[in-house]
Amino acid sequence: MSASYQSLSQPRVAVVGATGAVGIELIRCLEQRNFPLSSLRLLASKRSAGKTLPFRGQELVIEELNDANIRDIDLALFSAGSGPSKEFGPLTVARGGVVVDNSSAFRMDDDVPLVVPEINPFALEGHKGIIANPNCAAIISITPLWPLHRRNPIRRLIVSTYQAASGAGAAAMEELRLSTQAYLEGETYQHTVLPHPYAFNLFSHNTAIDPATGYNGEESKVIAESRKIFGAPDLPISATCVRVPVLRAHSVSITAEFTDPIAPDTARRLIADAPGVRLVDDAANNYFPMPIDASGQDDILVGRIRQDLSDPSGRSLNLFVAGDQLLKGAALNAVQIAELLLA
Amino acid sequence: MSASYQSLSQPRVAVVGATGAVGIELIRCLEQRNFPLSSLRLLASKRSAGKTLPFRGQELVIEELNDANIRDIDLALFSAGSGPSKEFGPLTVARGGVVVDNSSAFRMDDDVPLVVPEINPFALEGHKGIIANPNCAAIISITPLWPLHRRNPIRRLIVSTYQAASGAGAAAMEELRLSTQAYLEGETYQHTVLPHPYAFNLFSHNTAIDPATGYNGEESKVIAESRKIFGAPDLPISATCVRVPVLRAHSVSITAEFTDPIAPDTARRLIADAPGVRLVDDAANNYFPMPIDASGQDDILVGRIRQDLSDPSGRSLNLFVAGDQLLKGAALNAVQIAELLLA
Repeated sequence: MSASYQSLSQPRVAVVGATGAVGIELIRCLEQRNFPLSSLRLLASKRSAGKTLPFRGQELVIEELNDANIRDIDLALFSAGSGPSKEFGPLTVARGGVVVDNSSAFRMDDDVPLVVPEINPFALEGHKGIIANPNCAAIISITPLWPLHRRNPIRRLIVSTYQAASGAGAAAMEELRLSTQAYLEGETYQHTVLPHPYAFNLFSHNTAIDPATGYNGEESKVIAESRKIFGAPDLPISATCVRVPVLRAHSVSITAEFTDPIAPDTARRLIADAPGVRLVDDAANNYFPMPIDASGQDDILVGRIRQDLSDPSGRSLNLFVAGDQLLKGAALNAVQIAELLLA
Repeated sequence: MSASYQSLSQPRVAVVGATGAVGIELIRCLEQRNFPLSSLRLLASKRSAGKTLPFRGQELVIEELNDANIRDIDLALFSAGSGPSKEFGPLTVARGGVVVDNSSAFRMDDDVPLVVPEINPFALEGHKGIIANPNCAAIISITPLWPLHRRNPIRRLIVSTYQAASGAGAAAMEELRLSTQAYLEGETYQHTVLPHPYAFNLFSHNTAIDPATGYNGEESKVIAESRKIFGAPDLPISATCVRVPVLRAHSVSITAEFTDPIAPDTARRLIADAPGVRLVDDAANNYFPMPIDASGQDDILVGRIRQDLSDPSGRSLNLFVAGDQLLKGAALNAVQIAELLLA
């Protein structure tokens, strides 16, 4: 690492996008994990400036995100969307800070590490000041696969997601609540956040379709980012990303084809021993990963591990996982990256 | 066909399980499709006997399902669960009636046709009096694949389902509504129909896990029934069946590997020309199959048709489909079978 980033000790920290669904969780993670910071500043859009948010028993006043306020920061956790990250991320770095960025702005840049601490912490080595936090669906899909992949490399991966409202932010969560309430009361609801009715409905992820592939933006991120994090640039991956009427945990149905045959019990043992994931695979009681159990949990829940009956070679497994989109899918992973920078 | 079943003309029809979610739709389908029956009797459990349901402007009184009442029936549409089907289905046949059975009781019997009219109407030939209506998730998964499979046989099929409450009956739909209402009001709700909380949650299908395979009952049905309907007893299939908080339409994420390479446009053209399915694949407007659009529709909606990027051979496609579980997944398919028996 360059000299200016070697000694992140008792850093002055800023959370950029502090009032968003992820921003709130970033602040909570810093508090709950007792992150060794010397000061915390909260930055957000102008309309939130002056409001307060609690941290370690104090009410911190939110400042407007602008050129003047992006000073005196050793570590900035950005979660305000790609626009603010592009505008203020490099500026933060130019002024001596390190940025952990939750947006997609820099994820695929060659000189930006894209890190899941359980998978590729070594990618932080030699960073240039910006570290990218991966897409939530990518993190939740591949963190459980890493302990398997590192022993028996995956050679084909197919995922279908069941993504929560939180991935589209706090306003989408509120739209899910309000539109469902309206539905139950027989009233009409005009959706404004998401492009389709959400109450008791689901729909293909509302990111633009790439005409060349037919895949939407979210699916393309899952594919490209999973390859980068695994260091497997040619790994064949297919993703189908779907929004379901769930509030804050993403689930994923996974089919993974490995290089060599793999027994479900072997996979269970490897996952049970791996960090960041928890085996929830109780066939006798039909108890498997569920969003309500994953919500508020640091670990990604992993279950339904079984031989894929569509691959007679014995090399493929099916799994079903659920992880908190706001925690391991976003805020927690970012704070874990920040913790690695302290070391 | 045997003589007694050749001339189903103006039959005396009975709906068995008339008060269930599927039963109600069976009655509606008979009415809406102007089914040429000479009389309709409604049979249900003792606690529903004496109540009435509307049909063609009349209120028909529900009779108790018992030995005495299972007479004078030319055609019985059963949807009362496997128990009543096993008890009264063969008796109906012994008394000269034909049974179209929506339960799983007889589906895998060698001498019972398992029919999706768009796929294998010829299987009705020589039936012995009982015809099975397939599992809803199987019908909705494979009806859209048939026009592709018959030209370019599928050699591997992977499905992940997003199944609605209606698959577990009217009581489950009500539990989804009531538990969601309670959640929104901050109240607790004690679920009694399904084994897990359903409000803003999803869970692996609540049928028992086969210890030999790790697949649940629903998944095993999808696999076995799809093979039987396609007449492809060795087709490699994997299924992951999940209940999502949607009221009455099932969605399915499908990956199908074909014998020869297949272009998405070819698949679109074949599906656009096929009966029982409707192409909803508007990438420019990000408009694809959704449960709310499929609900109340006869056709299964099909979209997100694209080359599977995890298979560089060009032989695999991804699709996303949505179909009304109570209609094409159950009642409509049963009435379509009955219509074939008239011919």
